[in-house]
Amino acid sequence: MSTEHRFTFGLWTVGNPGRDPFGEPTRPPLDPVDSVHKLAELGAWGISLHDNDLIPWGTSPAEAERITARFEQALADTGLGVGMATTNLFGHPAFKDGAFTSNDRGVRRAAIGKAMRSIDLGARLGAEVYVFWGGREGTEASVAKDPRDALERYREAINVLAEYVVEQGYELRFAMEPKPNEPRGDIFLPTVGHALHFISTLDRPEMVGVNPEVAHETMAGLSFMHGVGQALWAGKLFHIDLNGQRIGRYDQDFRFAAEDLKEAFLLVRLLEHAGYEGPRHFDAHAYRSESPEGVWDFARGCMASYTALADRVAHFDSLPEVTEALARASTPELGEASCSGLGEADALKAEVDGLDALAQRGYFNEALDQLLVEVLLGVR
Amino acid sequence: MSTEHRFTFGLWTVGNPGRDPFGEPTRPPLDPVDSVHKLAELGAWGISLHDNDLIPWGTSPAEAERITARFEQALADTGLGVGMATTNLFGHPAFKDGAFTSNDRGVRRAAIGKAMRSIDLGARLGAEVYVFWGGREGTEASVAKDPRDALERYREAINVLAEYVVEQGYELRFAMEPKPNEPRGDIFLPTVGHALHFISTLDRPEMVGVNPEVAHETMAGLSFMHGVGQALWAGKLFHIDLNGQRIGRYDQDFRFAAEDLKEAFLLVRLLEHAGYEGPRHFDAHAYRSESPEGVWDFARGCMASYTALADRVAHFDSLPEVTEALARASTPELGEASCSGLGEADALKAEVDGLDALAQRGYFNEALDQLLVEVLLGVR
Amino acid sequence: MSTEHRFTFGLWTVGNPGRDPFGEPTRPPLDPVDSVHKLAELGAWGISLHDNDLIPWGTSPAEAERITARFEQALADTGLGVGMATTNLFGHPAFKDGAFTSNDRGVRRAAIGKAMRSIDLGARLGAEVYVFWGGREGTEASVAKDPRDALERYREAINVLAEYVVEQGYELRFAMEPKPNEPRGDIFLPTVGHALHFISTLDRPEMVGVNPEVAHETMAGLSFMHGVGQALWAGKLFHIDLNGQRIGRYDQDFRFAAEDLKEAFLLVRLLEHAGYEGPRHFDAHAYRSESPEGVWDFARGCMASYTALADRVAHFDSLPEVTEALARASTPELGEASCSGLGEADALKAEVDGLDALAQRGYFNEALDQLLVEVLLGVR
Amino acid sequence: MSTEHRFTFGLWTVGNPGRDPFGEPTRPPLDPVDSVHKLAELGAWGISLHDNDLIPWGTSPAEAERITARFEQALADTGLGVGMATTNLFGHPAFKDGAFTSNDRGVRRAAIGKAMRSIDLGARLGAEVYVFWGGREGTEASVAKDPRDALERYREAINVLAEYVVEQGYELRFAMEPKPNEPRGDIFLPTVGHALHFISTLDRPEMVGVNPEVAHETMAGLSFMHGVGQALWAGKLFHIDLNGQRIGRYDQDFRFAAEDLKEAFLLVRLLEHAGYEGPRHFDAHAYRSESPEGVWDFARGCMASYTALADRVAHFDSLPEVTEALARASTPELGEASCSGLGEADALKAEVDGLDALAQRGYFNEALDQLLVEVLLGVR
Repeated sequence: MSTEHRFTFGLWTVGNPGRDPFGEPTRPPLDPVDSVHKLAELGAWGISLHDNDLIPWGTSPAEAERITARFEQALADTGLGVGMATTNLFGHPAFKDGAFTSNDRGVRRAAIGKAMRSIDLGARLGAEVYVFWGGREGTEASVAKDPRDALERYREAINVLAEYVVEQGYELRFAMEPKPNEPRGDIFLPTVGHALHFISTLDRPEMVGVNPEVAHETMAGLSFMHGVGQALWAGKLFHIDLNGQRIGRYDQDFRFAAEDLKEAFLLVRLLEHAGYEGPRHFDAHAYRSESPEGVWDFARGCMASYTALADRVAHFDSLPEVTEALARASTPELGEASCSGLGEADALKAEVDGLDALAQRGYFNEALDQLLVEVLLGVR
Repeated sequence: MSTEHRFTFGLWTVGNPGRDPFGEPTRPPLDPVDSVHKLAELGAWGISLHDNDLIPWGTSPAEAERITARFEQALADTGLGVGMATTNLFGHPAFKDGAFTSNDRGVRRAAIGKAMRSIDLGARLGAEVYVFWGGREGTEASVAKDPRDALERYREAINVLAEYVVEQGYELRFAMEPKPNEPRGDIFLPTVGHALHFISTLDRPEMVGVNPEVAHETMAGLSFMHGVGQALWAGKLFHIDLNGQRIGRYDQDFRFAAEDLKEAFLLVRLLEHAGYEGPRHFDAHAYRSESPEGVWDFARGCMASYTALADRVAHFDSLPEVTEALARASTPELGEASCSGLGEADALKAEVDGLDALAQRGYFNEALDQLLVEVLLGVR
Repeated sequence: MSTEHRFTFGLWTVGNPGRDPFGEPTRPPLDPVDSVHKLAELGAWGISLHDNDLIPWGTSPAEAERITARFEQALADTGLGVGMATTNLFGHPAFKDGAFTSNDRGVRRAAIGKAMRSIDLGARLGAEVYVFWGGREGTEASVAKDPRDALERYREAINVLAEYVVEQGYELRFAMEPKPNEPRGDIFLPTVGHALHFISTLDRPEMVGVNPEVAHETMAGLSFMHGVGQALWAGKLFHIDLNGQRIGRYDQDFRFAAEDLKEAFLLVRLLEHAGYEGPRHFDAHAYRSESPEGVWDFARGCMASYTALADRVAHFDSLPEVTEALARASTPELGEASCSGLGEADALKAEVDGLDALAQRGYFNEALDQLLVEVLLGVR
Repeated sequence: MSTEHRFTFGLWTVGNPGRDPFGEPTRPPLDPVDSVHKLAELGAWGISLHDNDLIPWGTSPAEAERITARFEQALADTGLGVGMATTNLFGHPAFKDGAFTSNDRGVRRAAIGKAMRSIDLGARLGAEVYVFWGGREGTEASVAKDPRDALERYREAINVLAEYVVEQGYELRFAMEPKPNEPRGDIFLPTVGHALHFISTLDRPEMVGVNPEVAHETMAGLSFMHGVGQALWAGKLFHIDLNGQRIGRYDQDFRFAAEDLKEAFLLVRLLEHAGYEGPRHFDAHAYRSESPEGVWDFARGCMASYTALADRVAHFDSLPEVTEALARASTPELGEASCSGLGEADALKAEVDGLDALAQRGYFNEALDQLLVEVLLGVR
């Protein structure tokens, strides 16, 4: 397994014990240090973590220091990097009505404080990116929160935390992770689009990008490739969460490429074309039916599928019939400016009369898409 | 029927002949002038239109002038206003691969030209807002378009059209109307969030807002109330399309409030609280099973439900038990700043230790939401 | 609160501690005996339970006997009935690949045995109906199970359990509870339709009906009213689970009528028209944001909304304008036979030529549905 | 292209002119005779048709006879078979409230008559199967139809038509085609399960099976492979409609295997394992962006993908590591009976105590599913 793609896994992913809303854990907890060693052995580039993945809630400062030092040693021993760090602002019962957008001002303040402490930890561990997933920032009963107030509080929190990073001299950038629902009925900043807009309203928009997740956009039935495309277009793809998901379902977090191989192919192609340099981060977990051994099958599968898809992409792009099919679809022509500005206004208006003639051509998308399917199936 | 809410209907809504993908029209076409008179009689404030709702594709300039003058006369006779105008960039076969984002540069140029011509018409008719619904701006085979190129072309088109409006001295503002899919497999700018972000990248962002539609956000299972909330928070709610829709289905465009009465109530409450001053625009149509008579039942129903919901909202807000329930949910407290800035960093970090205590309280959302349901049902 | 509707609550519903996939419990466990007393006080008719709601996994036989006797005493003291009992075949880690359809024969045998033990308990407590919810009977990786084998094993299990009931002389009837997904990627018998068909293949189909749940059909975007209608039409509505849910989301189990008031109204109307005599069973739970006090707000709300909707139904049905609107829609005419059989074949063929004339009429569904909305809103 | 799979296409599929709810046709109509010749050339086994695909509504009897004879000649000339015939009971405006379940008794009678006429045509053309897709049998306003009445009328119609077939001595079998929604808000018999149950209530259940369609089950987010599995288990897979679709969207009818390659692979594997002998029928159409030339790219792609998937299936099944992975998942063990009946009741109850031990094993579904993905990607 090469590390060129900088594959990373959350500690909570390989460490997922298989608990779900209807059943108890099926696997014992994993020591984060063991996860580090095992992931290094499998060829991962690094790990990511929530504060409480490493340091359980309620740990004393002295014990927290001991845990952290031991973890740093494991990173040093294996050479693994920390691709991303984040704060758990959803597990503790106090966050049941939200963290940065809880109706209770005391909870909001503690949430900001917890994020500050956690940013200190992330900076110490050398994280490149700090992610904010607002899993509890939402409602079941929408009447209980004015969404304008909620967004204002959200903005306040991210602004003060960005300021904190600057004041502390940390090198961190932030990435907002959208999700439409679950665990809340409706979550604020439900999609990549909402998050990108929110970022444009911040005091330091240049410090903040997005962390799109396959499962989250897919839950809402949106094209993940289009969402990532808009983030890349805006220069805001600071991190990415790879996994598998079916539309319109609970948050499944399946192995990357376990669902929708064509979209996975298109995603890998877009990332590779765009020269995305961040980690390829797997935010997924093994099926609950797996024993501990199956967890590593899962991890290997994530990396193997990305690598295989990247190979398929390179092959697809190398085929002369693909170049020709893209030309028949006029795909490269979409990269050309449509006009040179208002000086052409009269000309543009006149060209309306040519629409009937323009309707005659075809775009040959069936042939192009079938080429893609056949490359995916190894027939070409 | 009072006109305080400025109810408007698209010519294409009451004029919808009941054609669908599986069946032929069930109603004859309506003369736009007759629609104006009938809507005036029912108490609507105004109408909205696509260029080709009034002037069919292929009409000669002389005939177009005659049609337009006759229509202006009907507006003058009835006192109806034009709430919004827009361009049909989806019906003509030439737009089968997109309009502003067609891979064919000639189509893109004609689309911009058609929008210019149509803006001229909208300005002449006194429209306040010019809407862009990019129904064909998308893909079925995502490999055929780099989404970054598509967004760049989209931006180019809106930029040049905004410039055109300024140069012509028109009073128009633009509103982007998002939609996730249908008629394309995936449409660019699929949600209010994506559109708000797109606007932030334009040359004249201040001229451009959004036109959210109940059905479009709902198709993706997103909270319409939250989406409108983000638009209001950003000062970008320039227009709104009201109708009814079930999640995860074809574009139904049902009568306003025919689906999800609670969300409709919350939407009306948000609009009224926010002091939204634009038209309450119904972008819906009668069931295909209706004869021409049923079309006016449909139109009456849209207005009657909005009015009834606005009354219910006022009643809800007047109840002392509602004020108390909101207080128990700490709803007003969400309007307060969480902290005074980085000077409080140490205090905020220290307050993390209070989370266990903060977890004890409840938020009483069940009681609050049940109050709402009981007001809706007329029990309170 | 009258008991005419025989309202029941699962012990697991009011006892739900607010744990979810992303967070720890927010409420302490409830003693089942306390739940019985509190529900009696609120006006419920009875309760329902899984074996392990009353007797936790791992309890010794002696302790189980003590718990059961104490619970029987509570029922006797309060007069509450047991509307339904069921087996927990999903919580224990051994069921991670299924219970009756686990690939492991040993698990399948233990699952059947656990159901037998649990049926003994249900019969002792006087349950009318025994429910089977096959939450773990499904797959994430469909390649791992041939669905034909899975259905054959499912049938084998229900057949042997029905035989067991008969042999033991219990008065129980069975009800299959369908669900499309969660906690498995895809669950066998995903809808009311699949379950009704499955029942038709059993050895004792007359003993087995369905237990449709609002949330489960709604997750798949199906009309709950139509599904319940098909069950009633087949004489198979043996039990019903009432709650609230949005389409295409995780299993929300919201308070009854918290979502989609129109569908809730139509459901109550159908149940009341059909003379459904089983319990109105609430399988829902309070929002996680609620403290213990909020749980009883939740329970009160479920019953209050059903009662209010039943009142609205009676009012709707009493209105002369409703009778007239139903007549204009030809609703009663759907109750008439279309023809008298093959003797009319030639006549029927000849009537095809009348289709153009038959197309002229309207069905006035807009007016009828708007009447319903206005009754719901208390305007009529 | 081999004909071993008996590929068939509906006349309406290759003949689809690219009209949709928002746009006019993009392709000219195709002469059915030309479609027959072109499909024969591409290697299809046969065609399928609605009555009005061949004989437009309003054609005189003499002209209908001429059209039919010319079409028979084309079939004879090319050797193409008729896999399936069906009646168009959705396009004519008279069916706007339903056909067999229209509230208007006259419409219901004409619908039965039209189906009789159309069955005569299908029998004449040698169709094996007669399909009923009840696209208009549903509601937008559920209050307008009691679902029990609707199902009763539906049953009446199918019963009388089955009787008609028997009386006429035709060799036809019927297949019911379910769909959840579109063009109606909610359609009766929304899934394979509902249809299978409905069939069990008919007078001649042995004559009637199902015609599941990828797009229709997928719209509701149901596993198509599981639905087809239940139909096969019941001996009721009389026909199948192959295409591509995303969950929770309008009816897309994409090229087979254009979406969800893993599910397509599993479907083909199930059909081939089960020895399904009916036609592989493509009910799909070319993207609207295609010119006439692209229609044949589309048709070729459907057949090429099925063939490639069937090859991949054979390869997958031939791999020793697959056999081993299935064994580790205990897949074959699901084919074994769980117990020998009630005589084992005590033993089964006793085995419950072994659940903790049974929980230790894993099912290795990650490894098995990843094998499948790698075979699909041509890596193995």
